[in-house]
Amino acid sequence: MPVGFVQISVGITGPLLLNGCEYSVPMATTEGCLVASTNRGCKAIYDCGGATGILLRDGMTRAPVVRFSMAKRATDLKFFLEDPLNFDTLSLSSRFARLQGIHCSIAGKNLYIRFSCSTGDAMGMNMVSKGVQNVLDFLQNDFPDMDVIGISGNFCSDKKPAAVNWIEGRGKSVVCEAIITEEVVRKVLKTTVPSLVELNMLKNLAGSAVAGALGGFNAHAANIVSAIFIATGQDPAQNIESSHCITMMEAVNDGKDLHISVTMPSIEVGTVGGGTQLASQSACLNLLGVKGASKESPGSNSRLLATIVAGSVLAGELSLMSAIAAGQLVKSHMKYNRSSKDVSKIAS
Amino acid sequence: MPVGFVQISVGITGPLLLNGCEYSVPMATTEGCLVASTNRGCKAIYDCGGATGILLRDGMTRAPVVRFSMAKRATDLKFFLEDPLNFDTLSLSSRFARLQGIHCSIAGKNLYIRFSCSTGDAMGMNMVSKGVQNVLDFLQNDFPDMDVIGISGNFCSDKKPAAVNWIEGRGKSVVCEAIITEEVVRKVLKTTVPSLVELNMLKNLAGSAVAGALGGFNAHAANIVSAIFIATGQDPAQNIESSHCITMMEAVNDGKDLHISVTMPSIEVGTVGGGTQLASQSACLNLLGVKGASKESPGSNSRLLATIVAGSVLAGELSLMSAIAAGQLVKSHMKYNRSSKDVSKIAS
Amino acid sequence: MPVGFVQISVGITGPLLLNGCEYSVPMATTEGCLVASTNRGCKAIYDCGGATGILLRDGMTRAPVVRFSMAKRATDLKFFLEDPLNFDTLSLSSRFARLQGIHCSIAGKNLYIRFSCSTGDAMGMNMVSKGVQNVLDFLQNDFPDMDVIGISGNFCSDKKPAAVNWIEGRGKSVVCEAIITEEVVRKVLKTTVPSLVELNMLKNLAGSAVAGALGGFNAHAANIVSAIFIATGQDPAQNIESSHCITMMEAVNDGKDLHISVTMPSIEVGTVGGGTQLASQSACLNLLGVKGASKESPGSNSRLLATIVAGSVLAGELSLMSAIAAGQLVKSHMKYNRSSKDVSKIAS
Amino acid sequence: MPVGFVQISVGITGPLLLNGCEYSVPMATTEGCLVASTNRGCKAIYDCGGATGILLRDGMTRAPVVRFSMAKRATDLKFFLEDPLNFDTLSLSSRFARLQGIHCSIAGKNLYIRFSCSTGDAMGMNMVSKGVQNVLDFLQNDFPDMDVIGISGNFCSDKKPAAVNWIEGRGKSVVCEAIITEEVVRKVLKTTVPSLVELNMLKNLAGSAVAGALGGFNAHAANIVSAIFIATGQDPAQNIESSHCITMMEAVNDGKDLHISVTMPSIEVGTVGGGTQLASQSACLNLLGVKGASKESPGSNSRLLATIVAGSVLAGELSLMSAIAAGQLVKSHMKYNRSSKDVSKIAS
Repeated sequence: MPVGFVQISVGITGPLLLNGCEYSVPMATTEGCLVASTNRGCKAIYDCGGATGILLRDGMTRAPVVRFSMAKRATDLKFFLEDPLNFDTLSLSSRFARLQGIHCSIAGKNLYIRFSCSTGDAMGMNMVSKGVQNVLDFLQNDFPDMDVIGISGNFCSDKKPAAVNWIEGRGKSVVCEAIITEEVVRKVLKTTVPSLVELNMLKNLAGSAVAGALGGFNAHAANIVSAIFIATGQDPAQNIESSHCITMMEAVNDGKDLHISVTMPSIEVGTVGGGTQLASQSACLNLLGVKGASKESPGSNSRLLATIVAGSVLAGELSLMSAIAAGQLVKSHMKYNRSSKDVSKIAS
Repeated sequence: MPVGFVQISVGITGPLLLNGCEYSVPMATTEGCLVASTNRGCKAIYDCGGATGILLRDGMTRAPVVRFSMAKRATDLKFFLEDPLNFDTLSLSSRFARLQGIHCSIAGKNLYIRFSCSTGDAMGMNMVSKGVQNVLDFLQNDFPDMDVIGISGNFCSDKKPAAVNWIEGRGKSVVCEAIITEEVVRKVLKTTVPSLVELNMLKNLAGSAVAGALGGFNAHAANIVSAIFIATGQDPAQNIESSHCITMMEAVNDGKDLHISVTMPSIEVGTVGGGTQLASQSACLNLLGVKGASKESPGSNSRLLATIVAGSVLAGELSLMSAIAAGQLVKSHMKYNRSSKDVSKIAS
Repeated sequence: MPVGFVQISVGITGPLLLNGCEYSVPMATTEGCLVASTNRGCKAIYDCGGATGILLRDGMTRAPVVRFSMAKRATDLKFFLEDPLNFDTLSLSSRFARLQGIHCSIAGKNLYIRFSCSTGDAMGMNMVSKGVQNVLDFLQNDFPDMDVIGISGNFCSDKKPAAVNWIEGRGKSVVCEAIITEEVVRKVLKTTVPSLVELNMLKNLAGSAVAGALGGFNAHAANIVSAIFIATGQDPAQNIESSHCITMMEAVNDGKDLHISVTMPSIEVGTVGGGTQLASQSACLNLLGVKGASKESPGSNSRLLATIVAGSVLAGELSLMSAIAAGQLVKSHMKYNRSSKDVSKIAS
Repeated sequence: MPVGFVQISVGITGPLLLNGCEYSVPMATTEGCLVASTNRGCKAIYDCGGATGILLRDGMTRAPVVRFSMAKRATDLKFFLEDPLNFDTLSLSSRFARLQGIHCSIAGKNLYIRFSCSTGDAMGMNMVSKGVQNVLDFLQNDFPDMDVIGISGNFCSDKKPAAVNWIEGRGKSVVCEAIITEEVVRKVLKTTVPSLVELNMLKNLAGSAVAGALGGFNAHAANIVSAIFIATGQDPAQNIESSHCITMMEAVNDGKDLHISVTMPSIEVGTVGGGTQLASQSACLNLLGVKGASKESPGSNSRLLATIVAGSVLAGELSLMSAIAAGQLVKSHMKYNRSSKDVSKIAS
């Protein structure tokens, strides 16, 4: 059925020094200055000894909606599902994916059941969907009056901005941090620590609050997430929740240096299946050393990929925020100033 | 700087019969069944006489954050900017983009100024950023105590899920509708009108409400938006707000037929600049007849593209919702049932 | 310090027939027609055999924010707190309130720890705050580098609209339902089942979605919650999250009758302490049979009160929605029509 | 119908020095320490020369939902309503309230029309509802196929947390600010400027962001709003949106002093009608000098009341935030420390 191809150029940013290792991060984007900008962030991080990334959670979710004739029966199923005694049985029935937890939410006689499963190195939507279908079949025995309205009832929640992902996470949750010295802020990033701290407070925290943001407390996480997703064969539509990010900047070491962090609760990535198998995308995964399923430690490839995504977002936030902070100084020279033009291009 | 390319296969869906014209819509995706599924929706729409799309609004936004020493001064600027008497002067000063409106929001002594501009056939972020920079330079004369903290203060809001876009729109706002007859629902979509109406209420409305969704009252708008964005050289990171969509399904004609609509307030597309100039992406725009800047009616190409995006989302919603609604009937045959597997792959 | 009193008149609505018992529900309000309207809803419920209310959860929360010098340490504490092996020790250390669960959320090097506790018949904020203070003191031994920034870090979340309460609940979570026959809808509520179902879909679901509502998928839950809260000595500021409610209306029994439900995840009430001890408020609790601490079953009084609140909201939703649905028919007679004026007064 | 009364004690806080005038602010609450705490904030403000409050907007809203057979017709009405040429005619037809603006939002073939009106010294819901009913009657002539589904379609949005109020305001929008000197922070508030600035960033901005707050970027605005609302006969259920508030704290004067502000977009108050006419509530309005309708400047009484509410919230935020900031220092003395107990009572 495909009639052809679009090509998207891939740039390499890095080395991103993360947890002691160096990564050359592929970014597929039509916006060249995005790679250059992220690269500057990587350099600042590198010059300060690197970033640290920590995985907080790993589980894909799927939430069917089922209906009963009365709310009473929906609550019966809810209590059944939440009873630890039933967990092992349910877990066995899911078969395709390892069940981690169940979160039920009720709207009258309709029950939304958010299953969370570990899915190895796969992004995991297929696995979880199949597992959930099995669980539903199994439950139908004990709850014959259960009416399955849809395998997805939007409490999952996939490819939609939804608080449930922001609050509870979906896929991989990662926090990533670095300390950038005053000197590097000045020399590499061309701004100052107080300017960055203030801009972060007024833009990424207060500004997003004023805008009614949901999980959008950052400058441009989505740019980096999208570029890496496309390069490595992820589902680009999932950048919606995968880009949820709160960027924090705080002055440390007596106000001299900058502590920057990104916290991203819903990074949805895999290193097997789907677009990861295509030639060029596969090469990009190879470049990062996370191609395919990890044999020693199942799931570790996709977890590492999520951590690299967060590390790259850290670099991207650092660089764009610096450009914006510095921008005010050079604003009168806009027309003649190349870096200022870059800013306007990618400023989010 | 680019080290290579990733290729993403492009499938054609359609013909999408929209406002009396037929469009072959290119979708770049690694998920083949997404094209097939959207195609089925297009067929159902075609068989019922086509869909109607209406543009509600067209304007790109950018919102700098400026700071004063006191809130009193921030309100002075707010009242100045909102005074119709000043509008023409401000409009002239923006130069690069035609100013449409200004929405100010205050957080203490910090003012967020959301400028909305028409930008012809360009997506318009660059134009607006330059125009806003000019306005700020101009305002500095009258408000010398204004401290420009950042050219973007996140009240824009770009590439973040934020209520301001959902409530006020960003880029193009489009509503698209069709009436699908009972017969087509049964024969092409393999389900029934009551099943679809109920599923839409329980999944896209109630389910998303339960999930705390922001603008995510749909099944998988993001899938279609992302695929067309990548095919036509749009910024894939902007699918976050471009995918904001409320899908409505109502029984009409005495409950016999289905009225389906998608309302999308923030579709951000252009037909000039950025990735639209690349060879394959340019070919995709050509296929739709919206390549480049329209000479007779500036902006009409990008507006048509936005309408086609909404029309394709309509088709996508129709098809996936039908697959989910039908899924319950065939759930016990999952393993042997090809279409069921497809559902699990793309079910959002 | 008090210089005087304000008096708020108390009306009695009911009997509310709930779980087989009849309750006379006191409502303190300056809006007389609110009591009359709720009363009509109670009558409709009564005539149809009563409503059923089910408690889904009971636990008060408090979430301090603590800071470390690095995110790495914040995650250490997070993993420590989430380890089941540590739960008993932590539980003992809380002393004042029985610990149920802990939900940690990270923003860089800052950790927000949402403790959930059962608090008997007290609303429980004081108990939980003291318990949490003890836990923090205890944790300080193992995490001497933990810097307690505030006993509340707004992840609790108290008296603010926040998704965490909507998604996970706070205080009591209750679902309440009833089936109203076609005849009662017509005779008592002066409207029809299809009108109500449609109005609920377009106003409480789609309308709130369009408005960017958070937990506000109802017509006027806050009116009833506030009136009962003030009558029974609850904290009226807590009506913010206590009013979170999704109202569902569905046609049942072959489309003939109406199934109505309200699901309220965050009802914060107590029957001991605070304003419940005052003379008139205490009398109101007595009227409901829920005064003081239950000796046989600690917590059952406050849980019953929460269920009565939900039952009364059910009645209130039923009546106002009916008035609005009928309002379109009588709109031309506004000036002469008493019930229509009532509607305009309380229509939310 | 009323069977009795509940009494709520009224304390006086102040003098609140606001815009050069001193106000004794009545607060009706069963929580004595709330008055004492707000009083401390008032004292700090007083000692520093007072606060400044500025009204940003004044208009009550009501949004009916109407339906057409096709979205096309809904957009016809939308364009009609948004055409400046029609504004005067519409304005005349509303009669009861002065029309300020109209904001339309579409969901398929359903149109939500948010009318904003000035309503003098009344809170204005009745006025607006009547005016909107008239406008709908008038529109029915030109749009006979318009089906009025409900006089309120929840896009108003009344007594529900909804982004539309946070983004566009409802009732009165007010910003209020003060500079608190280092000395007063130390002596009156028992904490330091850096502690307050940091706590505000981590709790009111980042903490609320993590919690998925909507307009809840404050410590306990709802406590003060509710207490003044009940004392002055306002609708206590409207504290939901009236409490929307972003509290900002920034170090000024070379980091020495504290700039604090509260920005509240949706304060819904009136000085005539409803509960304001009752004896004790009327006395409280008298105490503030805002009783009844202003004859010289219609609307100025209710606007002043809104400004006083914001000023009192400023005092409340200042005091509670200080107590929490100081709380960490005294936490080990909880049991013996009266002020610490107070904190735990009102800490939000």
